[in-house]
Amino acid sequence: MALIVKKFGGSSVATPEKIMAVAKRVLQEKHPEDRIVVVVSAMGDTTDDLISLAEAVTDKTYGREMDMLLATGEQISISLLAMAFAKLGHEAVSMTGFQAGITTNEVFNKAKITGIAPEKVLAELNAGKIVVVAGFQGITKAGDITTLGRGGSDTTAVAVAAGLKADHCEIYTDVDGIYSSDPRVVSDARRMKEITYNEMLELARLGAGVMHPRSVELGKHYGMPIHVRSTFTHEQGTFIREEYTMEEKEFVIRGVTHDTNVAKIAVLGVPNRPGIAYKIFSALAKANIDVDMIVQSIRVADKDIIDMVFTIAQGDVARARSILEKINQEISFGGLTIDENVAKVSVVGAGMLGNPGIAAATFGALADASINIEVISTSEISISCLIEAGKVKQAVNSIHNRFFPAN
Amino acid sequence: MALIVKKFGGSSVATPEKIMAVAKRVLQEKHPEDRIVVVVSAMGDTTDDLISLAEAVTDKTYGREMDMLLATGEQISISLLAMAFAKLGHEAVSMTGFQAGITTNEVFNKAKITGIAPEKVLAELNAGKIVVVAGFQGITKAGDITTLGRGGSDTTAVAVAAGLKADHCEIYTDVDGIYSSDPRVVSDARRMKEITYNEMLELARLGAGVMHPRSVELGKHYGMPIHVRSTFTHEQGTFIREEYTMEEKEFVIRGVTHDTNVAKIAVLGVPNRPGIAYKIFSALAKANIDVDMIVQSIRVADKDIIDMVFTIAQGDVARARSILEKINQEISFGGLTIDENVAKVSVVGAGMLGNPGIAAATFGALADASINIEVISTSEISISCLIEAGKVKQAVNSIHNRFFPAN
Repeated sequence: MALIVKKFGGSSVATPEKIMAVAKRVLQEKHPEDRIVVVVSAMGDTTDDLISLAEAVTDKTYGREMDMLLATGEQISISLLAMAFAKLGHEAVSMTGFQAGITTNEVFNKAKITGIAPEKVLAELNAGKIVVVAGFQGITKAGDITTLGRGGSDTTAVAVAAGLKADHCEIYTDVDGIYSSDPRVVSDARRMKEITYNEMLELARLGAGVMHPRSVELGKHYGMPIHVRSTFTHEQGTFIREEYTMEEKEFVIRGVTHDTNVAKIAVLGVPNRPGIAYKIFSALAKANIDVDMIVQSIRVADKDIIDMVFTIAQGDVARARSILEKINQEISFGGLTIDENVAKVSVVGAGMLGNPGIAAATFGALADASINIEVISTSEISISCLIEAGKVKQAVNSIHNRFFPAN
Repeated sequence: MALIVKKFGGSSVATPEKIMAVAKRVLQEKHPEDRIVVVVSAMGDTTDDLISLAEAVTDKTYGREMDMLLATGEQISISLLAMAFAKLGHEAVSMTGFQAGITTNEVFNKAKITGIAPEKVLAELNAGKIVVVAGFQGITKAGDITTLGRGGSDTTAVAVAAGLKADHCEIYTDVDGIYSSDPRVVSDARRMKEITYNEMLELARLGAGVMHPRSVELGKHYGMPIHVRSTFTHEQGTFIREEYTMEEKEFVIRGVTHDTNVAKIAVLGVPNRPGIAYKIFSALAKANIDVDMIVQSIRVADKDIIDMVFTIAQGDVARARSILEKINQEISFGGLTIDENVAKVSVVGAGMLGNPGIAAATFGALADASINIEVISTSEISISCLIEAGKVKQAVNSIHNRFFPAN
């Protein structure tokens, strides 16, 4: 007898027929004694349609009223899914965010969950009902409806699972698990049976798109195992949890990712004075520009001059350029080059901590493929290399082949 | 400085443009110190669209889940209307039924309001905001969302007005008030400046369609004046209240109504025994058939035989016939005739209590027009006559002309 929270996204409930299919699937997999909570997003394009309605009324944005509007999307899908369960002969009850006891802070449009009061959901589960909970929404202490922003429904599912002390949380997606690399790039990519929260977070940060980091962080915080699996098959997917349950760690590296939405910025010939780096990076931070892979180098010929290289997302290039040119008027550095013809490839794995050869093996794999490394950065559980954009596929395959040799 | 609750129906908020027009109108009429609550229905066909979605999932009906679904309709329109106010520069806040403190009983799909907790609405009004409240919905003590059924949004408006001790409640409709008769039938029909709750209830019962009796009853119970007025003009409409505020009662009769959805049933030659009427009318009541205008007559020639005549709605004729034929097998009465070629014309006015000539004047007006009266029934404040269906227009005009002489 397990207590399981299952989350289905908007494309899984896009039509009345798909809603019925979700209900059938949940019932097929349910053991008689299981207690099941289903978290759903709004049907298909509903959220976009609601936004269009608001845009037809006003060109301004209103946080509270927009959340009031958008929250209806999930309220529609939960009621229809509860009806589908009932039609199939299983008692079910739908709950909005506030009914499910999901409280948030007051940041409309991207509220954070501050607490789960699980009593009502538990009471209905214990009465034998399937409980269908609206994802993506909650309520403030003052009683205002909020929405959670990006990754919101996954976050709802993990938070509700944590609040209920569920056995685990299942996230149904259009892929059947977490892969050692993007299967569209690496034909030999392997599905991981297990992966740690930290590895998943690092993979997400470095370009793997399956899970939004937010829900993984929540899972990590509460030690809630997250099972990422396919909407379309019954196979087991990938469990995200604190530690591998298997003694033998099959692969040291858990994934090879890539990210082509990268621009390399080189600020050359900067006076080597305290506070210069602060000036540059605080100006970028103020403009909400995320900076990654920072390398600072002192010139051998002139120790008073440094060069700074870092990467940002390509969408931020124009704003970064104008910020840096403004700073240049004050500090006058030697030169500014921006290169969007780059990509980042990374290897991620908690196992690299006890395996000193990982960096060397990664660089070796790139050298074997005659790929130049422009910048290197490392974290405790990852190594990233900036390379020429055109060589991404080759680089990812060469590295992947090194760590996941063909059987 | 007044506190006014204004209600706009679904056709008034059917599109983003119409929502903006409602917001503009409310602001135009608002005095700086006025505190305004706006109650709105779901946009245009939204409710029908939601019902179609549910029907695509299941052919059964689920009270709680249907209310969860339908309540989204008003939640959409309140958020958009609040945005429209903000766009026009006036602070506004939307509230669902539960946020506005509207509690109901547990009868899903047609819940009755059991209480209004006005604190949150009052706090926002006192902060200078326009409060936009979702009509047609509330919440049970257990926290389940309910909808109020027919006449629900008008009822919300009057209930909220009563809970807030508002000065009055304005119901915006596609007509500009309550008329002395249907203007499509009587070209000379007068708009009433005032009418009592009881008169309005009697008019509604006898065929006038402007207001659902439910909200009028609530207004009567709380003594909340209801101003029925046009969405399209700024003119004053009709005030429904307990007493006329003017000393002189301009017209003794407040309205002449007609109802063509009537069938006359004659049960002839029934044995005159105790319990026979009970048998017939309890069987009809059990089938939810409303019976009106009952006349029982003893035959002069044979005191053991009676004839019974009554009217029902035409939609109930088939069921009534089968019920009566079944009873006929037990009691065996002499004959059963059903006549759908009839109509009911009525005069309504609290003033008739002190004016004994009203009945005579009504009958006289029909006689002047050579119209035969088949059945007569009276209440404290109304007189109804059953006549031949084809003569309705003539009858209504003749009676109207008697009580509202042309200027």
